Amino acid sequence: MVNSIDSTHDMGLESWVTSANGHPDFPVQNLPLGIFMPRRGPARAGVAIGDKILDLRVLYEMASPDARTILAPLAYAENLNGFLALGAAARRGLRQFLSAFLTDSTSRILRQKGATSLLLHESSECTLQLPVRVGNYTDFFAGVHHAAYAARRHQIPGDMFPNYAHLPIAYHGRASSVRVSGIEILRPAGQLRLKDDAAPIVAPSRKLDFELELGIWIGSGNALGTPIPVDNAHEHIGGYCLLNDLSARDIQAWESQPLGPFLAKNFGSVVSPWIITPEALMPFRTNRRARTSCEPPLLHYLDGREDAESGAISVDLEVSITSRRMRDARLSPRRVSATSTRELYWTAAQMVSHHTMGGCNLLPGDLIGTGTISGTEPGSAGSLLELTDDGKTPLSFSANETRSYLEDGDEILFHGKCNRSGFASIGFGVCKFIVAM
Amino acid sequence: MVNSIDSTHDMGLESWVTSANGHPDFPVQNLPLGIFMPRRGPARAGVAIGDKILDLRVLYEMASPDARTILAPLAYAENLNGFLALGAAARRGLRQFLSAFLTDSTSRILRQKGATSLLLHESSECTLQLPVRVGNYTDFFAGVHHAAYAARRHQIPGDMFPNYAHLPIAYHGRASSVRVSGIEILRPAGQLRLKDDAAPIVAPSRKLDFELELGIWIGSGNALGTPIPVDNAHEHIGGYCLLNDLSARDIQAWESQPLGPFLAKNFGSVVSPWIITPEALMPFRTNRRARTSCEPPLLHYLDGREDAESGAISVDLEVSITSRRMRDARLSPRRVSATSTRELYWTAAQMVSHHTMGGCNLLPGDLIGTGTISGTEPGSAGSLLELTDDGKTPLSFSANETRSYLEDGDEILFHGKCNRSGFASIGFGVCKFIVAM
Repeated sequence: MVNSIDSTHDMGLESWVTSANGHPDFPVQNLPLGIFMPRRGPARAGVAIGDKILDLRVLYEMASPDARTILAPLAYAENLNGFLALGAAARRGLRQFLSAFLTDSTSRILRQKGATSLLLHESSECTLQLPVRVGNYTDFFAGVHHAAYAARRHQIPGDMFPNYAHLPIAYHGRASSVRVSGIEILRPAGQLRLKDDAAPIVAPSRKLDFELELGIWIGSGNALGTPIPVDNAHEHIGGYCLLNDLSARDIQAWESQPLGPFLAKNFGSVVSPWIITPEALMPFRTNRRARTSCEPPLLHYLDGREDAESGAISVDLEVSITSRRMRDARLSPRRVSATSTRELYWTAAQMVSHHTMGGCNLLPGDLIGTGTISGTEPGSAGSLLELTDDGKTPLSFSANETRSYLEDGDEILFHGKCNRSGFASIGFGVCKFIVAM
Repeated sequence: MVNSIDSTHDMGLESWVTSANGHPDFPVQNLPLGIFMPRRGPARAGVAIGDKILDLRVLYEMASPDARTILAPLAYAENLNGFLALGAAARRGLRQFLSAFLTDSTSRILRQKGATSLLLHESSECTLQLPVRVGNYTDFFAGVHHAAYAARRHQIPGDMFPNYAHLPIAYHGRASSVRVSGIEILRPAGQLRLKDDAAPIVAPSRKLDFELELGIWIGSGNALGTPIPVDNAHEHIGGYCLLNDLSARDIQAWESQPLGPFLAKNFGSVVSPWIITPEALMPFRTNRRARTSCEPPLLHYLDGREDAESGAISVDLEVSITSRRMRDARLSPRRVSATSTRELYWTAAQMVSHHTMGGCNLLPGDLIGTGTISGTEPGSAGSLLELTDDGKTPLSFSANETRSYLEDGDEILFHGKCNRSGFASIGFGVCKFIVAM
């Protein structure tokens, strides 16, 4: 796959959409897909380019017959499920076309009257929607330092779960409550125990937390009973996003025995709106984490040759928070964590292959979360549970505020950036939500 | 709700579809809804009546304008999600209409030329489909004797999980692999440990099991952030089915720490095709299980007045198995278990209310499983795990066969029947599948 870097990734490419050139998230080398509502008219598919959104419905109407063939699955789509189902070839064809179009200021389409004002919307004037109808949502546990923290808290011998190095642990999440960045989410009520030996009470969660994850959108699916081999898995991945798997730690502690988290996780999960394509991420792929002699060898179905060479991905991640008081005082967000997807123990292809090894079918638009991504340094954990050690070491904010867990009115922002020398940096855009007051 | 027994439940009602009168599953007092494919033409909604299926598309075309209003949401539906979303009033209106139509041999509709041969299909000539598009699937753990068995196996102090009597434990299942009765399912491969201290191997599961459950179809849903109070929950339940939550015990034992079952459960779950409506089940409702002084009091959100009086439901359940060899020798199925939904610790309304208490939204067509239903007597457990004590006491079959867990070629059949003196018995029809050879 490393060989799949092509001219669409050239650092020197410039777009006639001038705000794209040097844009921190959306230069012409990125070309992420989403569903947006313009100021006027129904929701539709678009591409983020600089500060603008390219309207794929308008582009289709203006395009040549050949280009229309490429754009047809998107032109009148209400979500991207159908396009994702077409798989990698359709995505690659679209990327080639969009890259050529957005870098050619002499394009025939642009010579049509009023073309740019019809084709481009100001992002700030549009509302982004959930890009897909989420059929199923699965959450993995591939952030090894987060897992190690959990194992220590559970006093597991050896400070790690015995199955951890053998298989990508996962559980099924709730698809119906996945929401797009920008919403408010109500603090959930649930059963809590204030002391370990007390009877439970019903109360709003006092330990509301974020979980910093990378989200994986399934592209083409597989039939029930037909596993996806690890080296084919990338053909089934339609894109990536940032994912905040909100968690209520106190509800989780009481309800999870013996079947795992339920209400602690199903009151809302938030994704960033733009689907970053596997093609855009090609320059940022890297080799899979090497195993030490202390770790068991990989079982064959998780050991792909291509995956070993280029199955990992390098996205720098940041978490920031603003409190209501900080926003009122116009203070900048407080960065509370910085880490990287390089901390993941398992690759996306290993997760997809494991998910399907028993025959489970994945559908276009299914969402897979990696699990909370934490580093080992101070200030690199992907949850407040870890950052504050369950409230024992609260974070200091500006404005004389501290945080053990999230407070009402807090806004939590995730950012993801890909950087590599010799390539244009690309970003994921923001994944944010506010805890409703 | 006990007051909702009406003339559609009268034991004396007879249908002009003569096979319905005295039919073990589908007398005119039942009127379950499904989606079927007739010998000719596309899939459509129908009602089971005796050995026939009443075609709701044809009925709509023949009906008066008033009746068309009732039938319109079903006439050209490809699944029942839209009808379920309309809630209880639409269901009740349909039941009244169908009961009147099917018991009136002088109906104007029947006087149309060839009416009965157009309206009725032989069930044996039709293919039943999954009645809904399953958005989300949640599995509870409300079978108290199954839970107690699990607790003993896990050596939990007091032989029960400490949260069990406080909350209806549940986890999210996999919606994409829910299938309708009649299919073959492949034995899943997965990671297994042959001994507790051995390294895992990859192999087909050696402990493939059934789980006998009642399934609950969600009717009208709720908005994210808006819990459903326990005494309103029945307004959100669209119907019931039999559910076989297939399980691979060896995969489950190794993968489940700490987040619960995943591949052990997601390779296939099977539902019976007919949606038995809450209205049909009215005569079989009964009071909620009483709590003893040894149990904690119910938390208020789980304690509904109406639910206490009539929130439980009484369905007699049976599990039978035939092996390939038994079918070749034309032997009858071997009954391996008989139990009842009266063994459930929590009511459907308590499950719905708990599911939404933190704000989680349910969607029309979501599936909720009760968890495995087991009794306390020998031969009353809802899984082979319990019936054979994990293979230690295999079942004897005819034809010199024994069973610890399911073998390739086995067909597993669930039946559910409701019986009450003074009322016509109704049944769920069969929920069956074959372990592929």
